[in-house]
Formats: sequence, C-alpha cells, structure tokens
Amino acid sequence: MILNTQIQHETTLDPENWAELRELAHRMLDDMLTNLETVRERPVWQPIPPEVKARFAESLPTVPQPVEEVYQQFLDDVLAYPMGNPHPRFWGWVMGAGTPVAMLADMLAAGINPNMGGGDHSANRLEAQVIHWSKQIFGFPAEASGLLVSGGSMANLVGLAVARHAKAGFDLRKEGLFGAAARLMVYCNAEAHSSIQRAAEVLGLGSDSVRKIPTNDHFQLDISALEAAINADKAAGLQPFCIVGTAGTTNTGGMDDLNAIADICQRENLWFHVDGAFGAFAALSPQLKHLTAGMESADSLAFDWHKWPQLPFEIGCVLVRDGDLHRRTFTLRPDYLKHEERGVAGGDIWFSDFGIELTRSFKALKVWMLLKTHGVEAIAQIVEQNVAQARYMGELVDAAPELERLAPVTLNIVCFRYNPGGLDEVALDRLNNELLLRLQESGVAVMSSTRIGGKFVLRPSITNHRTRFEDVELVVETVRQIGKTLVESGTY
Amino acid sequence: MILNTQIQHETTLDPENWAELRELAHRMLDDMLTNLETVRERPVWQPIPPEVKARFAESLPTVPQPVEEVYQQFLDDVLAYPMGNPHPRFWGWVMGAGTPVAMLADMLAAGINPNMGGGDHSANRLEAQVIHWSKQIFGFPAEASGLLVSGGSMANLVGLAVARHAKAGFDLRKEGLFGAAARLMVYCNAEAHSSIQRAAEVLGLGSDSVRKIPTNDHFQLDISALEAAINADKAAGLQPFCIVGTAGTTNTGGMDDLNAIADICQRENLWFHVDGAFGAFAALSPQLKHLTAGMESADSLAFDWHKWPQLPFEIGCVLVRDGDLHRRTFTLRPDYLKHEERGVAGGDIWFSDFGIELTRSFKALKVWMLLKTHGVEAIAQIVEQNVAQARYMGELVDAAPELERLAPVTLNIVCFRYNPGGLDEVALDRLNNELLLRLQESGVAVMSSTRIGGKFVLRPSITNHRTRFEDVELVVETVRQIGKTLVESGTY
Repeated sequence: MILNTQIQHETTLDPENWAELRELAHRMLDDMLTNLETVRERPVWQPIPPEVKARFAESLPTVPQPVEEVYQQFLDDVLAYPMGNPHPRFWGWVMGAGTPVAMLADMLAAGINPNMGGGDHSANRLEAQVIHWSKQIFGFPAEASGLLVSGGSMANLVGLAVARHAKAGFDLRKEGLFGAAARLMVYCNAEAHSSIQRAAEVLGLGSDSVRKIPTNDHFQLDISALEAAINADKAAGLQPFCIVGTAGTTNTGGMDDLNAIADICQRENLWFHVDGAFGAFAALSPQLKHLTAGMESADSLAFDWHKWPQLPFEIGCVLVRDGDLHRRTFTLRPDYLKHEERGVAGGDIWFSDFGIELTRSFKALKVWMLLKTHGVEAIAQIVEQNVAQARYMGELVDAAPELERLAPVTLNIVCFRYNPGGLDEVALDRLNNELLLRLQESGVAVMSSTRIGGKFVLRPSITNHRTRFEDVELVVETVRQIGKTLVESGTY
Repeated sequence: MILNTQIQHETTLDPENWAELRELAHRMLDDMLTNLETVRERPVWQPIPPEVKARFAESLPTVPQPVEEVYQQFLDDVLAYPMGNPHPRFWGWVMGAGTPVAMLADMLAAGINPNMGGGDHSANRLEAQVIHWSKQIFGFPAEASGLLVSGGSMANLVGLAVARHAKAGFDLRKEGLFGAAARLMVYCNAEAHSSIQRAAEVLGLGSDSVRKIPTNDHFQLDISALEAAINADKAAGLQPFCIVGTAGTTNTGGMDDLNAIADICQRENLWFHVDGAFGAFAALSPQLKHLTAGMESADSLAFDWHKWPQLPFEIGCVLVRDGDLHRRTFTLRPDYLKHEERGVAGGDIWFSDFGIELTRSFKALKVWMLLKTHGVEAIAQIVEQNVAQARYMGELVDAAPELERLAPVTLNIVCFRYNPGGLDEVALDRLNNELLLRLQESGVAVMSSTRIGGKFVLRPSITNHRTRFEDVELVVETVRQIGKTLVESGTY
C-alpha cells in the first residue's frame, strides 16, 4: 500500500545519450594507448606556456559544458605538459612509469567502484588474495596481515603505529602518549626516508624521538653507532621501541645490514620495521637477494607497488608479522558498522580494521592483473635490468674524466657530478644545478638531485620498465655535452 | 665518447602487440559502460558462490597468463559479485554510486600517471584549481589551503593534526606530546564518526582525549553539555584544544549547531573543525543551506568527493583556513626533494607539504571533469533530490502502521524498523536484523543498520544519483512484505 506517488523530475549524473559518451570514451582510450605507445618519441618534460597556466585560474564552473570540450582541454592543457614519468628517460626521485594494463585495471576498478573497507563481495576477496601473494613474495607467515595503502609514507606510518602499540607497555589507544613514563625512541639510518620523521611527528612522538644514526662508507646505518645510541638513550631514561631498517635509501640506494638490525631488535626487544619502498623488490632477484637478507624477519615491512612494479599511483603496502596485533592497533566498530553472518556486511575480510581509512578504493585489482598477466618473475627482471643499467651508467661515469661519482652504485641510483677540475665547491654546485635544469629543459631526460657530503649531485634513479641501455648512453653523453657547453660559455 | 655498447635483451611490461591489447581494451571499456548503463536491471547484491570464493585462494602466479584470460576471470568472478553501490537501490552506509565520466577520468589519470606531490606540470595546476574551487564552494578565503586525500578519515586526521599543531602551545613537531603539560582534549558529538576517535588514537592523543558529548532530540551535540564538559576539563587541569562539529552524523544525518560551536571556539580559543563528510554539500542547496550555517567559519573542514558528488573511491578533501599554518604542520624537505626555480621541480605547488603522502595520484582530474561537465549546480540537485527521497521514505514509513521511525529525517538518512506490535525489544531486534539480511539477499535493495537508543534499526542512507522516487516506494513495499512473511512464518 503506497501512500502516494510523487512524480518529480529526477536528475542523474549519467549521460542523457549513452551512445555519444561511448564514442567519446573509445576515443579517449585510443588517445591514451597511443600516448603510451609513442611516449619515447616525445620530450620527457617541457615547461608549461603562460597561456596554458592562465587557463587553470578560471573560476568555479556553474553551468555544464559538453564533455567533449572538457576532454579537449584535457588534451591541450594537461596531457601535453606531463610530469614525464612514463617516459623511458625519466629517472627523477623514485617513481614507476605505469603500464597500459594497469591503466585499464584502474578503469575497471573505477567502474565497479566497490568500497574495500569490508563486506562480502569479490573485490574484497581479491584484495585478500593480493595480500596473501605479498606475504609469499616477501617470506611472511600465513598469520601475518597486510594492507594496501597510498604508498610508502602511509605504509611506514601504519608500521610505526603498530610498533608503538606493541611496545609502549601500556594502553596507548586509550591513554595516548600522555600515559608514557618515558619518551619512546625510534632509530633509523640518517639517510632514511623523510616519511619516518613525518610518521613520528604525526604519531605524536615528535622528531626528538627519531634518532638518526650515521652511515658507514656504503651509506648503511652504522651498527656500532646504533648500539651506542640505544645504550646511551636507555642510560638517559628514554625508552627505545623500534628500529627502522632501510632497504634502499632514497639518496643513494644504500641497503642497511638488516640481519644485524634484526639481531639487535631481538636482543633489545624492539620492533623491527623495514622501509623497503623500492629496495624490497631486490629480494625477488637471485643475484640481488643477498642485499635484503634479514628483511624476512621484520615485524613490519613497507613497500610500494607504484615504484619498481610500475603500477600507477597510489599503491603501497604494509605487511605485519603478527596480524592480530595489527588488527588490535586499529579496529573500531561503531553501531553503523555492524558485521553480519550473512549479506553484504558478512564475511570475515574487513580491511578497515587495519588502518586509517574506512572507505577504500579497489587498488588491489591492478596488482592482481599485473601478477597474473606477467607473473612475479617479470618484476624481478625489471629490477635486475634497472640495476644493470644503473651499474652501466656508473661505469660510463667512472670512465669519463670530467664526471665524478660520489657514492657506490648499490642498486639503481647513481650519484655523480660534472667536475672538469679547477672549480671550487660553490662553483661546482652551481654548475651542476644549472646542468640538471638544462638537461630537463632539453627534453632528453629528467633526473633529480640530492647532496652527498654536502655536495650537489645529479641523482638518476632508474625504476622504469621502458628504459634501455641505449638511453643510459644517450643521457651520459648529453650530460657531458651540456656540461662542456656550460663551462665553455661560463653561463652558470 | 661511449665506453662500450652493451647489447642486452631488454624486457618491458608494455605489450608485445599493442594492436591486440588495444582490441581487448575497447572490449573492456564497452563492458564497463554497458555494466553501468544496465545496472538497474540486475540484483543490487548477491552472495558469492563457493566455487568462485575458492578461486581466490590460488597461489602466487609465477608464469605469465594471457591478459584476455585474466580479464575473463575478472568478468566471471569479480564483476559478477559486486558490493552493489553503483545500483540505484544501494543505500548502505554512506557511499557514492560512481559515474561513467568519472570512470573515464580515472583511466586518463592512470594513463598520464603524474606524481602529485609537487613540481611544475599541468596536473599539479589542475589540482590547485580544484582546491581553489573547493574554497569557493564552501566560502573559504583565498589564503586557505586544501588537500585532496583518500577520504573523510584522512581529512579528519589532517584537520586534527593542524589543530594539535596550532593549539598545543609548544613545538609539538619537535617534542611530540611528551612536551605537553596537560592532556589535550577534543570535543565532539557522541554520534560523531569513528574516524574522529581513530584520528585521536593515531595522533597519540588516545581515546581518553576525546570527549563525546551527548545529543539532544535532534541528534545534535548538546551545546550546554559541551560547555559544561569544557569547564569541567579546564577545572581538572586538562587542556581543551579543539571542537569537532558534525555536518551529517553517520547514524541519523543529524546536523550540529555549527554557529553555536563556532562561538564557543572563538570564546575559548579552540580550533573549530567540521566533519562534513557528506553533509557539507547541503550548503550547495538554497533550501538546505541553513542546516550548515556556521560551517563557513570553521578552521578546517573535511568533506568527501566520493560521497554525495558521486566520484569513485577514494577522494576526500580537507580545507584549512590558515594555509600557512597547514603547511607548517607538515612541511619537510630533505635534500632529495630540492625545489628549483625552473625545470620539473619548479613551480610553487607542493602538495606534499600539506599532508602525510609524498607520492600522490591524480585524483583531482575526476573532480575537475565533474565540475566542468555538470557544473556545481548538479551536485546541489542530487543532494536535494536524495533529501526529498529520504523525506518521502519517512512519510511512507510514518503512514505504514507496522513501520516505526526512530529518528527525524534531517537530511538523507531514515532510521526505522518493522514493528507489528506485541513483540519485546529482543524479538524486534532479531526480526529486523533478519529482515535486513533477507532484503539484501532478495537483490531488491541494500541498506545497512545501526542502533538508535539501543534499538536495532534499518538505516537507508540515500547518496545516490541513480535513485528514483519509484525505488523508494518499491523498497518500502518490499520491507513490509518481508516483515509480514517473517512474522507470519516466525522464522527470525
């Protein structure tokens, strides 16, 4: 018995004409595939013209605009001036290049659009499978837990949150850090990623709780300095709770001695977290695996699917050896999140119990399609290839009299500078900074920079499945040419 | 001068045959568009058969599989057993339904795949434009900042992190909460979203720092109880620092008196954060705007683009009135993140200075395409339509003798139960829980549940651009039929 039937004009965000949208959609798809297929033919990066920049200052749209026009603006103003990371010669920071299959996976994920917080639907089971596979890849036990997150920063934050919960020694979820008798201390390589400090700040520990341990000549955390710091802190009444090992430092690709760190953690009853954002994948390679020895005994491990495995942003992962502890760090179930025995709120997979987010996107699909389509071996091949390319670049640098390498090539990162001799450090910094920018502006390659021992260096970091050995040769040659031109003209 | 040319076999994750992948890609796109166009014709949700579940237990793939086969498994095992939220009669929790244009935007974003942490590329400027538009929508000043994040949980976390930084009264980034002289206290509606407590826990404040204030009859935070709590805490030596106003509680859609909260924040020098995950968008509607009065004076505002604006997961946003304070809460610039005057690391847009993530995906594109394609008015229309539908459902419930409404319909949520009379509370809870599950299993509709005053209630929450008034009628009628059958058969 219906009270009355209100006939109202109803609106929707679906298209009035599906056939028209379908035609445009196929054009978009073709454009994007062509864009990826031909990426090598274009400059890696180019500056945005002022008139394009100006268009991004337009005010809030109040009236509808045909979607074809909106797409045309995307082509003209966005696609034409990209960051450049899909290009074979983009070696800035540590990024992945994306793949066409993963782009399609993101389309499928957005189309089905499930909420991966929990419930009984296939997407959720698929994510559980991806977590299971991740545990297999990194040698974690079946009772471990895992969570797909936005990236390494969030994976490190979650890992440190579990560590804090596990080692505080009081009910930290209830009392917060106000319940602490002593400052909680975390230890890491001085070259550890900035997300460790950021996590400590967000977690309310503060940067004073992060003890940055000096490195040895291989840019590894110095083990005896670590032990001394722990002892000194204990003597001063502080409470060590966690050591972060880095598998692949951002500056140089340095790999900490994880076995030594694991031993100290066991002896001192500390949490062992590994930031393996990109370096963890070295474990997949028989020839590189020794660099990650000890990683498999971590209490928690952070790594990125959007770096070496080449998936589009954002997708990282954290694994926690004690899955129940991980769940107890985060689980919160208000009345409106009742879990059921049956129905859509059924099943026992509730990822929202394991992290910050309650609503979660279907990131898992692109991992699943990557691993099924290529097999895990393919990631190992990309890792080995990029490391070989970086080592080759190191050889080319060493062989060129005017190029100077400033750190060992442990993994995929080369730190070097143009040094023709006869210039002081200030001039060298200025010269190399200008060289870096000219190289980017040339469209030939993008690399980023860092400082090693205070010296400004070019820092190519190759995590790119499109890079070829010939690209390495071209870029080293281009660096030498630009350097020569700058020195001869004195324009730096 | 090249040292030598290593000729090696190079591998890539690009397809060997682009034409073949292109053909499959177009089939995927057609399938997904058809899936959305015909979603109304299918059941909202259905249980996953055991044989499908079993396939998600398969082990890590080591050898490659043709992408066509992988896609076929996606169709058979994933697409066929969805959560259901794109369906017009999915009213569980608070979710959006997705749109085809936004699906395409996610494909374009994954194809171009920029890193939105910062740098000088068009995508970054587009995100800045989207933040600018967000400020215009919610009446925030030009000097405010904003950040696109994964959703409301992260937006609330960021807002509270800035609040903590702003009001602690000491260098919290350095000292952490160990530097606090007194426990920092945050106040919110007892019906506030669980992400407020989770944020307090993650930030190291602990749940003891969250004062949950009782509600009045309209499920609003009781203002005099709030004032009393603040005074009592101050008398006890605690340090109030923030009040969270809720624009749209998850249980009932209740809207706090934000003007009254704003006044108290000003008087007491407290941070005023608003969790407007879905309810904030009521501000777009002339007829609903009064419910959000005061929101425009918030110090920080959290809202979700993936709820009422219907974008695919994940995309939320936080705005902060004092943009510089926001930046100073998070900014960290290690050597390897040097910003430049020119080149790809140029420009003044560095979103990584404003939150946890350093690597960020191109979520902004779908907001940009939504607002340009439909205009902001379209969101207002969807909001008004859903609120009218919820109110209509409330009328149908009130008119049905065996249905009992347990909360006012302020916005888009109806809390009601089947109550034929003569049953005690235990039996009513059991009856309504079984009714909820039977309704989901029927495939007609999905709603979730909550408890109001301890009583189990059905809780349809309509944030769905595909819902029609006729759907409301069908579902109320189906609930009455299922309830009648259950009571007559006694099977609950």
